[in-house]
Amino acid sequence: MPLRFLQSSLLPPSFPHNNFIDSPKKQDRKLLLCVQDSRTQLLECNNNNNNPKFCRPDYPDQFSCVPISKILRKPIQEEEKVRQEDGDDDLWLVMKDEAQSDVNREPILSNYYFSSILSHNVIETALAHYLSVKLSDSSLPSGTLYELFMSVLSEDQEIIRAVKDDLRAVKERDPACISYVQCFLNFKGFLACQSHRIAHKLWSQDRKVLAFMIQNRVSEVFASDIHPGAKIGRGILLDHATGVVIGETAVIGNNVSILHNVTLGGTGKVSGDRHPKIGDGVLIGAGTCVLGNVRIGEGAKIGAGSVVLRDVPARTTAVGNPAKLIGGKENPVKLDKIPGLTMDHTLHINEWSDYVI
Amino acid sequence: MPLRFLQSSLLPPSFPHNNFIDSPKKQDRKLLLCVQDSRTQLLECNNNNNNPKFCRPDYPDQFSCVPISKILRKPIQEEEKVRQEDGDDDLWLVMKDEAQSDVNREPILSNYYFSSILSHNVIETALAHYLSVKLSDSSLPSGTLYELFMSVLSEDQEIIRAVKDDLRAVKERDPACISYVQCFLNFKGFLACQSHRIAHKLWSQDRKVLAFMIQNRVSEVFASDIHPGAKIGRGILLDHATGVVIGETAVIGNNVSILHNVTLGGTGKVSGDRHPKIGDGVLIGAGTCVLGNVRIGEGAKIGAGSVVLRDVPARTTAVGNPAKLIGGKENPVKLDKIPGLTMDHTLHINEWSDYVI
Amino acid sequence: MPLRFLQSSLLPPSFPHNNFIDSPKKQDRKLLLCVQDSRTQLLECNNNNNNPKFCRPDYPDQFSCVPISKILRKPIQEEEKVRQEDGDDDLWLVMKDEAQSDVNREPILSNYYFSSILSHNVIETALAHYLSVKLSDSSLPSGTLYELFMSVLSEDQEIIRAVKDDLRAVKERDPACISYVQCFLNFKGFLACQSHRIAHKLWSQDRKVLAFMIQNRVSEVFASDIHPGAKIGRGILLDHATGVVIGETAVIGNNVSILHNVTLGGTGKVSGDRHPKIGDGVLIGAGTCVLGNVRIGEGAKIGAGSVVLRDVPARTTAVGNPAKLIGGKENPVKLDKIPGLTMDHTLHINEWSDYVI
Repeated sequence: MPLRFLQSSLLPPSFPHNNFIDSPKKQDRKLLLCVQDSRTQLLECNNNNNNPKFCRPDYPDQFSCVPISKILRKPIQEEEKVRQEDGDDDLWLVMKDEAQSDVNREPILSNYYFSSILSHNVIETALAHYLSVKLSDSSLPSGTLYELFMSVLSEDQEIIRAVKDDLRAVKERDPACISYVQCFLNFKGFLACQSHRIAHKLWSQDRKVLAFMIQNRVSEVFASDIHPGAKIGRGILLDHATGVVIGETAVIGNNVSILHNVTLGGTGKVSGDRHPKIGDGVLIGAGTCVLGNVRIGEGAKIGAGSVVLRDVPARTTAVGNPAKLIGGKENPVKLDKIPGLTMDHTLHINEWSDYVI
Repeated sequence: MPLRFLQSSLLPPSFPHNNFIDSPKKQDRKLLLCVQDSRTQLLECNNNNNNPKFCRPDYPDQFSCVPISKILRKPIQEEEKVRQEDGDDDLWLVMKDEAQSDVNREPILSNYYFSSILSHNVIETALAHYLSVKLSDSSLPSGTLYELFMSVLSEDQEIIRAVKDDLRAVKERDPACISYVQCFLNFKGFLACQSHRIAHKLWSQDRKVLAFMIQNRVSEVFASDIHPGAKIGRGILLDHATGVVIGETAVIGNNVSILHNVTLGGTGKVSGDRHPKIGDGVLIGAGTCVLGNVRIGEGAKIGAGSVVLRDVPARTTAVGNPAKLIGGKENPVKLDKIPGLTMDHTLHINEWSDYVI
Repeated sequence: MPLRFLQSSLLPPSFPHNNFIDSPKKQDRKLLLCVQDSRTQLLECNNNNNNPKFCRPDYPDQFSCVPISKILRKPIQEEEKVRQEDGDDDLWLVMKDEAQSDVNREPILSNYYFSSILSHNVIETALAHYLSVKLSDSSLPSGTLYELFMSVLSEDQEIIRAVKDDLRAVKERDPACISYVQCFLNFKGFLACQSHRIAHKLWSQDRKVLAFMIQNRVSEVFASDIHPGAKIGRGILLDHATGVVIGETAVIGNNVSILHNVTLGGTGKVSGDRHPKIGDGVLIGAGTCVLGNVRIGEGAKIGAGSVVLRDVPARTTAVGNPAKLIGGKENPVKLDKIPGLTMDHTLHINEWSDYVI
């Protein structure tokens, strides 16, 4: 049945269509918050809907509408100003070009790229769609998750700016990353981080049940367990990401790079502020545990396999189990570059005095 | 189509209905072993069924019936006595209250909570259902797994008592755990541990093929690889759980807390008793390897990132790679609290003499 | 409805039927490349198909046909010669016997074993089928992946020989492995390694988009993140496999055993040859990081939890963080057995001088 084959494998699917024609800043803000696609059948809301939180009565044929009060919390001009400063309007267009180029090379992936990238006019819907597919299972349908993710992404442009900063960070720092689209589709650390941004927003709105549900699905699917209370900056690279654990009161600055199997852990049953504080530009190597409410100063580097239980001064390097400062406690060697950006894991070898192999 | 939306998202689904009205101890034991739900269509068994192991001919319209010989192995009075002593009849009722409260806050999760918690009158069917959903894939349908899990849980009340002890342990010890339901739905370490209890029961019945299948699916879905031969006590906390590996001849006591990326590993190709023995009340920090048939005495604590290749005396603290005792081999500092319960990872820092940062 | 139950649970499913009657070497090579099964409806190709790369017009009712040019790249006689030398014609028959024995013990798994093992006359289709089921999700259908995997496995008999060597390696070295079928179905390290072999082939053909897609799905599903550029020999055991990370320019020899949470990592943003080279017969313990373009000599052993940043001579043992040679740098103890084969993790304990517990 060749026609059927053509339909199912090669022609673009009808999902999802949406209302965005141009970039969001040119749009009516109200439209940005409503998406019409093939899920509409399932999620459509109307005046009789008994879940008013997610619907606005004046858009009877659309869904995922957040309350007007929240939409209007920030003046639109301010949002637009930041967008223009960031100059990130073009990033999604670049990504769609990358995606088209990939599909031209590998037509077998047409459907996958169409539903994941090419059918979306803005990164918001693409991210909500892709995460909802990844994090759904047979008891948590992707439609429910999509609705939830869009309700957050629509109302908080800060998250989308952080998403774009993370895309740039991965592409710039990871030599194995060849395009933004590769990062978006294939880097589970990137996807775990963006899921966390959504979960953290829900956490800050005291919607803990939803936040914990996302945390758990991310832990199962991407093997990164990030408590929704953790505060994470922009320009973050979670490289490989398997086994990452970040606790509730951890705070991570901007331009931080964290390898797999890194733990930012607590100190037992004590409640309260009990997790590490990671400064801007820090690099933490694979398999490292940082435990307790300790401060890793900005631009510091922690070698792979270290166990850090005390503060590490800014721009120094700590290695070992227990971790010691390269150059000694009194006069540690100071780094002149930002390790979170250079991703240099090994320049300290020659100075690690007892390294004998 | 608003009606359709209401039907699919907001009204409770018809799945699963079962025969339990009250708590199991008030029930006919035979009824406990048979569940009628929407899967009945698929799994129903009758006199003509050629898989008699899983069916009893006198319950033609029900499934998951274990052989009568197994049901009657333990006198019912004895089971009831222990249940009353444990006082755990109420735990499931508490959990349903918690679930109802969550749904009232987040109606978007109605279906998920209904199928996972609220539709179940006993924890047995809820656990079998939730694990079967998590561990199924397109080649292993959830119906097959549900049937298998119920056949084990129905005949072994020891497992259910351990499940409840684990729920209490997580809630008590983990400051990030706010309710029993959160643990049940969202803690992959809890779910991995309960899956292991079922796999271990099958292993002890020499049903190794099924036991290995469960081990593998747990390793894929929850990233914890626990050999079905391992013996695990009650009141266990597997915190975060990613990367946990526990070998075939490992034995873990009661009230033990194990962090993520902990290995209780063997010593090569040698068969026989080759894995660690962990005493009651032990705490093992993140990323630690304990290798070989060594004994970790009760109430001992192993710091994060340690490599332990020899016995650790009771109530002492071992840290480092290779691990050494805090206070020294001859006169180690003795702990006066149970670290598996206090979850204190870091009190040894001041005594770790060569810690120089 | 007992009949329905019988149909769905106990009778063999109709999927997949294929054209293989005997072992592949007795077959027309063209037939080896075409499989007819229940997916035909979806993937069927004909003369009008606009994706000619994956179809041959002279097999209108079959799919997954690779170009004839590629099929004929290697003379068939040469392939057959190696197959006969390897004596691996029998392995699949042994595995089908094992599978039948398992099903006789556990009829509840009939469907699962039939679709995964018993319905396949050659290991190629079984492997492509099983991996496609494991790595699919709702945006990446298993049919697409099966087509892709078969296109690679059909044209490269080297991969299948490596698959069989890996099966033998796991069965021989891992005391927890009781049959080839258990390894095939349940060892995620084995499945991750075979997925990598396919991804690496695509990488070497400059089909990077497909190769990265496989890498990512393997990282999500099996928690092993292996860059498709990495070169991996035969007879490989990735034991437990959670958290394994292997970089782009890593090279791994034959008969190597690597435990979980092992990193063969790079040295930062530098491009070019930046990852470890692992010699034949090496054993790397759990949680170890080997970083940079360092050489681990053949037959060397790296203890669990080590951090290795420099070369390790052949047949020596390195342990610790940072790793040191057992016996000292000047006169290290030489191993007389191959640790990658003996899997001996702990014989060095007595010689680890500062081990004080």
